[in-house]
Amino acid sequence: MTSVLFDGIGLLYTGDPEAEELTDAALVAQDGLVAWIGPAGEAPDADQRVDAGGRCVIPGFVDSHAHLVFAGDRSAEFAARMSGVPYSAGGIRTTVAATRGAGAAELTARTAVLVAEMAAQGTTTVEIKSGYGLTVEDERRALRVAADFTAETTYLGAHVVPPDTDPDDYVRLVTGPMLDACAPHARWIDVFCERGAFDGDQTREILSAGIAAGLGARVHAGQLGEGPGVAVACELGAASADHCTHLSAADVEALASSGVVATLLPGAEFSTRSPYPDARRLLGAGVTVALATDCNPGSSFTSSMPFCIALAVREMRMTPLEAVRAATYGGARALRRDDVGVLRPGARADLVMLDASSYIHLAYRPGVPLVRQVWQAGQRIF
Amino acid sequence: MTSVLFDGIGLLYTGDPEAEELTDAALVAQDGLVAWIGPAGEAPDADQRVDAGGRCVIPGFVDSHAHLVFAGDRSAEFAARMSGVPYSAGGIRTTVAATRGAGAAELTARTAVLVAEMAAQGTTTVEIKSGYGLTVEDERRALRVAADFTAETTYLGAHVVPPDTDPDDYVRLVTGPMLDACAPHARWIDVFCERGAFDGDQTREILSAGIAAGLGARVHAGQLGEGPGVAVACELGAASADHCTHLSAADVEALASSGVVATLLPGAEFSTRSPYPDARRLLGAGVTVALATDCNPGSSFTSSMPFCIALAVREMRMTPLEAVRAATYGGARALRRDDVGVLRPGARADLVMLDASSYIHLAYRPGVPLVRQVWQAGQRIF
Repeated sequence: MTSVLFDGIGLLYTGDPEAEELTDAALVAQDGLVAWIGPAGEAPDADQRVDAGGRCVIPGFVDSHAHLVFAGDRSAEFAARMSGVPYSAGGIRTTVAATRGAGAAELTARTAVLVAEMAAQGTTTVEIKSGYGLTVEDERRALRVAADFTAETTYLGAHVVPPDTDPDDYVRLVTGPMLDACAPHARWIDVFCERGAFDGDQTREILSAGIAAGLGARVHAGQLGEGPGVAVACELGAASADHCTHLSAADVEALASSGVVATLLPGAEFSTRSPYPDARRLLGAGVTVALATDCNPGSSFTSSMPFCIALAVREMRMTPLEAVRAATYGGARALRRDDVGVLRPGARADLVMLDASSYIHLAYRPGVPLVRQVWQAGQRIF
Repeated sequence: MTSVLFDGIGLLYTGDPEAEELTDAALVAQDGLVAWIGPAGEAPDADQRVDAGGRCVIPGFVDSHAHLVFAGDRSAEFAARMSGVPYSAGGIRTTVAATRGAGAAELTARTAVLVAEMAAQGTTTVEIKSGYGLTVEDERRALRVAADFTAETTYLGAHVVPPDTDPDDYVRLVTGPMLDACAPHARWIDVFCERGAFDGDQTREILSAGIAAGLGARVHAGQLGEGPGVAVACELGAASADHCTHLSAADVEALASSGVVATLLPGAEFSTRSPYPDARRLLGAGVTVALATDCNPGSSFTSSMPFCIALAVREMRMTPLEAVRAATYGGARALRRDDVGVLRPGARADLVMLDASSYIHLAYRPGVPLVRQVWQAGQRIF
């Protein structure tokens, strides 16, 4: 594998708390990893030279919450919701029916389109959940599709109880035969802990079974109202509690003291016209915050991390620095990864060159495609 | 010039009130104009065939309010504003200083970058204002730059009173020697009617002088508070009153009865963290509404009409249909153009193929670059 020198970087946001921002910098990638970072013009020789022309370079985004394996389209439901029909978890069942009816090749092709769309917007690491199958075979199939695209596969059999199914029976399935079938294809287990989906006891039971099977835990918590999800996540040492739109004071304290990452998904609030999470309260309490797209056909069909950064700044009063940190370093923490979301020697050479002098422009120029080049493990992918 | 057949259009939004949406359609462009629209598979022969593959086709966006001729960057001011510093019209002076200091070639090159960025996001007609020169020579220079890119050039000498200048003296300059120098290069005259900029009497005087010089009138009105701008616009028969964020009941009635277009610029509210205009009140009163970007380095540095459509739906409760109509047909009305913003025989063949089955996706998939192909006067430009 060849080495690549990125020279003339006007502003390098590294995501490394030790040296977070460098001006007039250079970076060398070798064998897929960052080999050297230092002042522009002083880098060692490399096989290939890329002139950043004074532009800003940041780590590839780490999108730690996405539901990409599905079929169907819910644009009509979206349009109705924008006219006043409220969002409910039940709409998931529409996508479940479409996904079950699709062939594996179609699911793979559709997932590939979304992963490529994400790459073009700077995402180089994405977590992909199952959750639109809800049978042993359909969940396993979704995870196999996901595993073609990422190591960060998440078993979300506990997305919603399927129609005409007894909830207790379904929890037994999710913690029994479905878990057995899915665990070999997953790194994580997730539960949608919400009124209309799974309660606190069910969430604890399902996550505990997953942990016993060797999976890491993550939870959908506090999206539509306060609930037990964050407490269970902290109790069980989950990597991340996601959404965190409605939190009690005890939830915020638990996140801060446990080190569980709060993953905020402002695309969901945008697309369901809901109030946004209080990021300042979380940051003020010392909680590690991640930003992710929640890309899914029901409540947040954006694949754009830059859009989520713009929302984080406008709507959640994060500074541009806090937002880009949450979209890179924060996402990596939410996946317990040290090798991505950061640019330092030894990390994976995943980087984004922006058509801008600063990452501030991701919020200052909302909606504008500012991603100029994307490199993953030292290879250009966009 | 060759003819081009666009076949297999899943959904054709025409922007023509007589036949606004067609399914399974085809369109033929010839000599730069739309020559034929009808059912898919029944079109006459053409030199080139483009298969839309079931995708949605819409007219190119008409961005009727943009400030593209400038130098400098105000990302630091943006970041400070997001931390709580309020927006004021005075920031315009920062850009004036940078613009005066730039060479004409630099201004042309920067404008070209923004126009190309807009084209890649589906905009095929853009209005470009002066207003960062504020001297006779600098305003004329800006309009000459703008005229390289569009016929819709707008003289905005009355953007703000320059520092250390007597307001009465400046109005005399704007209505006298500056108007004489600029009118040959402009189609429109515009005034920023706002506290801190120009009052109602000044606005009337400046617009009247422009009209007497053969220019059409348009007004920045009601951005930061209620004011006389809309009343003056309606009194003088302006084409459009822009911003319309703060309107009295009399303003709404005047817009409805005069036929002056209300051009809403939600990018400005996004980037200044301000309340959005009440689009439903305007639509309910029968006012013609346009959407535009207000692209400028101070209060709205987006160039993305899709982003403005997503904001219009989420924040202003426009339906996706109303929003796409405002971004095409509405923008054309705001520029008094019948040949753009609409796809019907005889109109200019400006069209956008979306990577989506419907224009709803422009709001349903916020931030995602969904523009697949852009054609202007029958030529592919993206």
